[in-house]
Order: sequence, then C-alpha cells, then structure tokens
Amino acid sequence: MFNASVYTARRDTLKKDVGSGLVLFLGNEESSINFKANWYHFRQDSSFLYFFGLSLPGLAAIVDIDHDRTTVFGDELSIDDIVWTGPQPTIAELANRSGVQHTDSLKALVSVLNKALQSGSTIHYLPPYRPENSLKLQHWLGFDQEQIQRGHSVELIKAIVAQRSYKSALEIEEINKAVDITADMHLTAMKLVSEGKKEMEIVGAVQEVAVGAGGQLSYPVILTRNGQILHNHYHGNTLRSGDMVLVDCGAEVATGYAGDMTRTFPVDSQFTERQKTLYELVVKAHTTAVDTLQPDIPFKEVHLTACKTLVEGLKEIGLMKGDAQEAVNAGAHTMFFQCGLGHMMGLDVHDMEDLGEQYVGYTDTMIKSVEFGLKSLRLGKALEPGFVITVEPGIYIIPELIDLWKATNKNAQFINYQALESYRDFGGIRVEEDFVITETGAQLLGKPVAKTAAAVESIRTEATA
Amino acid sequence: MFNASVYTARRDTLKKDVGSGLVLFLGNEESSINFKANWYHFRQDSSFLYFFGLSLPGLAAIVDIDHDRTTVFGDELSIDDIVWTGPQPTIAELANRSGVQHTDSLKALVSVLNKALQSGSTIHYLPPYRPENSLKLQHWLGFDQEQIQRGHSVELIKAIVAQRSYKSALEIEEINKAVDITADMHLTAMKLVSEGKKEMEIVGAVQEVAVGAGGQLSYPVILTRNGQILHNHYHGNTLRSGDMVLVDCGAEVATGYAGDMTRTFPVDSQFTERQKTLYELVVKAHTTAVDTLQPDIPFKEVHLTACKTLVEGLKEIGLMKGDAQEAVNAGAHTMFFQCGLGHMMGLDVHDMEDLGEQYVGYTDTMIKSVEFGLKSLRLGKALEPGFVITVEPGIYIIPELIDLWKATNKNAQFINYQALESYRDFGGIRVEEDFVITETGAQLLGKPVAKTAAAVESIRTEATA
Ligand SMILES: [Mn+2]
Ligand SMILES: [Mn+2]
Repeated sequence: MFNASVYTARRDTLKKDVGSGLVLFLGNEESSINFKANWYHFRQDSSFLYFFGLSLPGLAAIVDIDHDRTTVFGDELSIDDIVWTGPQPTIAELANRSGVQHTDSLKALVSVLNKALQSGSTIHYLPPYRPENSLKLQHWLGFDQEQIQRGHSVELIKAIVAQRSYKSALEIEEINKAVDITADMHLTAMKLVSEGKKEMEIVGAVQEVAVGAGGQLSYPVILTRNGQILHNHYHGNTLRSGDMVLVDCGAEVATGYAGDMTRTFPVDSQFTERQKTLYELVVKAHTTAVDTLQPDIPFKEVHLTACKTLVEGLKEIGLMKGDAQEAVNAGAHTMFFQCGLGHMMGLDVHDMEDLGEQYVGYTDTMIKSVEFGLKSLRLGKALEPGFVITVEPGIYIIPELIDLWKATNKNAQFINYQALESYRDFGGIRVEEDFVITETGAQLLGKPVAKTAAAVESIRTEATA
Repeated sequence: MFNASVYTARRDTLKKDVGSGLVLFLGNEESSINFKANWYHFRQDSSFLYFFGLSLPGLAAIVDIDHDRTTVFGDELSIDDIVWTGPQPTIAELANRSGVQHTDSLKALVSVLNKALQSGSTIHYLPPYRPENSLKLQHWLGFDQEQIQRGHSVELIKAIVAQRSYKSALEIEEINKAVDITADMHLTAMKLVSEGKKEMEIVGAVQEVAVGAGGQLSYPVILTRNGQILHNHYHGNTLRSGDMVLVDCGAEVATGYAGDMTRTFPVDSQFTERQKTLYELVVKAHTTAVDTLQPDIPFKEVHLTACKTLVEGLKEIGLMKGDAQEAVNAGAHTMFFQCGLGHMMGLDVHDMEDLGEQYVGYTDTMIKSVEFGLKSLRLGKALEPGFVITVEPGIYIIPELIDLWKATNKNAQFINYQALESYRDFGGIRVEEDFVITETGAQLLGKPVAKTAAAVESIRTEATA
C-alpha cells in the first residue's frame, strides 16, 4: 500500500465531491470454493483498496461527511485465532496505515447505520457485485434485494470515477510493474508453444510467472487455438502445426493494479501467408489507433478509425467491398471485429466496471450504444491525461455469425460472403497493449513485446529451432 | 465425468435413502473477483458433481422422489451468446450425459418449488456455503436467511454422506490421478527450493504443475518457512540457510477429485540435528498411525496413538515429561500438535465439510469434542473399506501458545517449559499422505514421495549440488 497521506487526500477529495451523508465502503470477504473454509485467493474490493489500501477480509468503513469522521470497522482476532494465524495487526494498527483514527467492531457498524437511517441521513453505497455484500446490505440496512440493487449512490459512483480515472505517478509505477510481469508472461508463452503441447501446459507456465512474481492473474487466462471464440477459457486442445495461438493474459501486482495484453502467434515458426496478411492488418489497425491517442479525442472515434482501417484492409484482401466509411457506419465491420477497441485499466482490468460502464466510459450527454459492436465498447468518451487504457483491435472469423447474417443477407453490399466461406476455419487474431494518455499523446506501459509479424516470427523461429 | 449410468445409480440410491419429498440441488455460479464479469475459476458444488457430473454454472436440479421424476434446470444460450462462446451443448444434451430425461428453465424451477411448498411436500436442500446460493433459496423459497440456515435437510445430509464416504474403483482411479499430480508438485518444490529464493517463486512453480496437468489447486498452497503458523498463506518471505520449508498443497483433477500432501524439508541439503530429531519423530508418528489403519478402528484412536507416539518422542528429547498416556489424556500434547491427524478426502479436500463435520466424521452416538485439539479432529468414527483419508501428524512450536499456557502453568507436569524456551523459533513440521481403507488395512494413494529424513536429504543434496 501507499503512504497513509495518499489515502487521506483521496478521502478528503471524496468528501468534497459527494458533499453530504455517510459513505459506506464494503470490503470483500473470503470467497468459498467448495466448502466454507476452502477459499479462492482473497481479492479486496478495488474502491476499498483505493481509499483505504487494506487488503484483508472482514473490513468495512464509513466516511461520515456531515460529522467529518472516518471509521474502519472490523473484529479483532482472539488469542485463540492468533495461535492459528500468528501475530496479526489490530484493527487500529490497520486503520492507522490508511490515516484513519477511529475504529470499531462490525456490531457497532450496524448501530451507526441504524442511527443514520433513523435520522434520515443519506447512506451512499456502491452497487454490490458480490453476493456476500448484497447479503450484508440486506442485514445491515434492512432493505430487500430489489431496494439494494436500485439504492446505490450515483453521486458516489461519479465522485469515485472522477478520482480513479486519473492515474497518479505512484499508480502508473504500479501499473508499469504489472505490465512488465504481463510482458514476461507473454514472452514465456511465445517461447514455450510447440506442436503437440496442450494449451493447459502453457497456461500453467504463464500463471507461474504472475504468481512467482508475488502477484495473481488480473483475469482468467485466454490461451487458445480458437481465438475467434471471444469468451473462451477452455484449455484442453492440443496445438497443431498451422494453428495460431491467441494469448490474452495479465498480471495483477500486490497493490491490486492490473496489466492486460494480447498476442497472437503461429505454432510453427512462421505465419501462413493468409495468417500473416490478416495479422499485419490487425497490427496496422493497432498502430493507426495508437497514433491518434491524445487528450480530447473521443475514444469512440479512435475505435471507429481502427474499424475503418480494418475494413480498408479487408477490402484489399477481398473479404469486404463498397465504401469503407459507409461499411463502418452500417456496422458491417462487426462481422470481423465484434467488440470494442479498448477500456480503462487500473485497479481492475476493466477499471471500475462494477460502478457501471455508462459512468466510467461515457458521459451524461454521451450514452452508450446498444448496437451490436458499439454496445461492447466500454469506453467512448474523450480521453484525458492520466487515463490508462487498452488498445486491442482484432479480426475474428465466427462461423455462427457468418451463418446468422448470411441467412438474411445482412450487410451483403459490404461483405463478400463467398470469399468469407473459405476463411470459415481461420480463427481469430487480437493484438493488445496498455497506454497512459499524456499531455500530448500516449505512452506505452510496460516493456515492449514483439508485435510485428517479423518480430514474432523471429522469436518463434528461435523457439522452434 | 463418468458414464451416465453411474449418476443414475447414485440418484436411485439417494431416492431410497431419503424416502420422500423433493431434493433440490443447487449448482454453483461463477464467483466474481473484483467486478461481476471477472471470475475465479469455476468450481461446481461437489454433491452436484457427484449426482449429476455437470461442471457448468447456472444449473439446478430436482429429484422428485414422490413422483420419481428428476429434472435438470438451466437456461439455454441465445444465438447471440453463442457468437461469443462458440457452439455449446443444450441443457437437454447436458442432462442426457447425467442420465436425466427431463429439463426445464430456471423460471419453471421456481414454479415447481412453489407448487411443492403449497402442497406441503418436503423440500430437501443442503446447507448453503456460498452466498449466491443463500440468495437463491431466499428468492425461490421465500424464506429469510435464518430459516434458510436452519432449514437444511439432515436426512439428505445423511443420505449423501452414506454414499460419498465409500469411494468406488472409478473414484479411486481419479483420486490416484490427483495424488500423482500432487506428488509431482511436491517433487518440484523439493527440487526448486534454494537459499535466497522467495516462497512465492516456488508457489508459482507448484501451481504450474497442477494447472499444466489440466487441473487446479485443491486448496490454497501453504508453502512457508513458518510452518508453525497453521493458517498461513503468506508467501513473501525469502528462504534462508537453516530454515525448514513446509509445503502443504494438492491438485484437483478435472472430475473434481482432490489430492492433499505435506512435506517438510531443509533449505540446506541437510536438516540440522535438532530438526532431524523432530522430523524423524513426526515420521515415526505417521508410520505408527498408518500401521494401525484398518476397518473398524475409530480414527480418533489412530489420532490418539499418534499423539502418544509424539509424546514419547518428546519425552526422550526432554521437551515433555511424565506418563505419556496421562499426558495425552490431559491434552498436554496439544502444545505441539494442536490439530487433527486427518480427514476424509474425495471431491473435496476436506470431503463433505460443507455437510457438517459431525455428520461426516462422527456418528449419532459419537459427538465431536469441543476440547482444544480434538475439536480440530475432523474424523473420529470407525474406519470402513472405501474411506479415503489423510494422515498428517505434525509438531508445531507456536510462541503465542507457549506464552498463553505458561502464564497459567498449564500442563506443567507434562511440559518442560524451560527446555521448550530454546525451541521457541523452531518452526513447524508436518508429514501428510492419503490412504484408502481396504478390507484388511490401508493402501497409499498416488506415487510415493521421499519421506524419511535420509530420502529427503538425498533429494536436497542433489538439488543444492
Ligand atoms: Mn483488454
Ligand atoms: Mn490435509
């Protein structure tokens, strides 16, 4: 965690921005796997981390704006517990690390909340994304689950987005560490892949890099010969000559900051000609998008620029036709690129996604689209210095989507369905990197990893020699 | 998963054993890490796996005993979903793999439950250990959380324990696979440890073995120079000459079966004399316990035999005194061995712990003790052929416990507190293996891993050469 003054300053800003009432922060609990005491690795809630930095289960906090009093709530370990856990800091010692002077038990928390409810104070809380926290709100506030779902505080969400969106130098340092480890994960995969290996073997090695560096995965590893399946966490396939492997994985460092990177490379030492052409097109879309990154440009525009680059390339290959801009306007490119160009990244790989994509990636006057393609663009609004974002164009040939569109001849003026048929089993390609927006443009985060077809093939040539 | 007939037979037995009413099985959901769509690896509920074998989120099942009708409930993916996930089996196809003919939506499940409630049928369900399933029961049955906690079915628990306790040949095969991978994890650790490495580096490598083999960890890795801290998942220490490393870890195979093993070894090539003496004592307690394993012997007796062996050895070393049997009767050994000798293992590393330790490890006439030491013995009842259990004696020197007992001179007639003082920083030792009880004794599961001090030192000598 950072110095206590960092957390105090963040809470001071929050108090000003929210204005009045009580802000209730729910820490996360241990998450049970197959029985109560068998746990997944603990992950604290990111906003709790941001304002308190304490990565332990069983904590909550209240920032009472009206009485200018911040309290951390938690129950002390008994001497019996300490026999099993070794000596542990008290709640007061923990709170002190966050610059908080007041502490109390969880029982006291309930009476503070009841008093606030009776006196009509506003209790600001965030939308719960974990069921244990929905249950806590039910117990503590006496609300039913419907009330809880609609009762979250939009003022609080906006105040938090207003801070967490702008990464400080300290945060950028942590993100750089996470992306450096992420880069090592990718180099490991790029070197280890060979014909006949199972996907899971490489997944194990990639995960080792993150855990061995004292972190965790920032999200489940995607590592697959079927890169066209976007939500794909199956790792049971055997890698074959002629396959491409899509690896989308990232590390999270101990402070909670994430890295997020994707590379696609051949199981052989070289791409096939067909693979290379589409791969280089994705890299071109990536480079074109990165070149436009700068303050004030709406990320939706960057996204659409990348889409247009893809369409122009697909026209050259003969998979699309017609006017490129009109094709993008019609959404015809979503046959090949169904998702968004990128998202915010920070304490979450999709930063603040639990607060709501509309609040994080859009504005009061820019509403997130519901159209296929754009509805998956998590970030649309104008970029600002300090934003950390991913850029991740791709080309995915999805047989089910071809069949779905072809049945109604959808966008037939832009898509060469006949040519596309021979690409049915092509697979998917994505290239993803992380950037911080600066005063004048953008800066790559973490150490660079081979990206051009030539650079990738050079590593693969060495690896398969 | 196994052949459909396996699941059908298990459900048929269950119907007979429970007798009447509806049995409601809740599958697990994806478990969110730091926002809704960022998930830990999925783990199905073990009883759901046992009776249906389906390892996917979003499922529930009802075995209607009175109408002899079993239904799997779940919602189909839309064609839109399939664009993101690739082709997926329908609920009917999934159910078919479990030998179930009837399927319906989750909405239909709620109306089946409501009808059953209205007609006064008993709805049998297991104690929920995940908050999402507590919330489902609340929504579906209209119960409040207190009702849900006390409303679980003891008949159902007993019927499930009556089946899951006896492992079939098919299950033993899976457990052997899990323990074989577990053995590889331990060999990896034993070979990789060296002075100056961080614990986390070895944790990463150990985890790689489990994931690379297509499985997962069966529980979070304990890998520490502080083996005396029993609930210890910190991996930030650097390993030093003179340290012992305690590694407690296991793999889970794709079918869900677990392995659970512990080894303790020196960072140097050799134990110190003092370490070796206590290590060999733990091995002796282990061997003595294993030699007594056979049908009909209460595991509590095996536990107490191991305790007595430890006391006799500690007397020789001068850390304990007085009559060994009296010391065990008084619980004086719990200064050194605070926990239980072992537990059932199967689809859970602590098998069926979610059903309640009293039901799994004890009987109607043998109530689990609440005394320090015995209260941590998860299994007390008589062993039977087909039981799979762990044997894991240890010696843990816990400074906080020394101070706690010494303050009241507790068990001073059996403990040589003065001699113990010089062992304050000694650490902890545990040796754990998994066994299946046979008709005549017990059989080690998985391939053997170096266990005697000499065998361990031989591996360490090679590793540090
Ligand atoms: Mn991404
Ligand atoms: Mn164990």
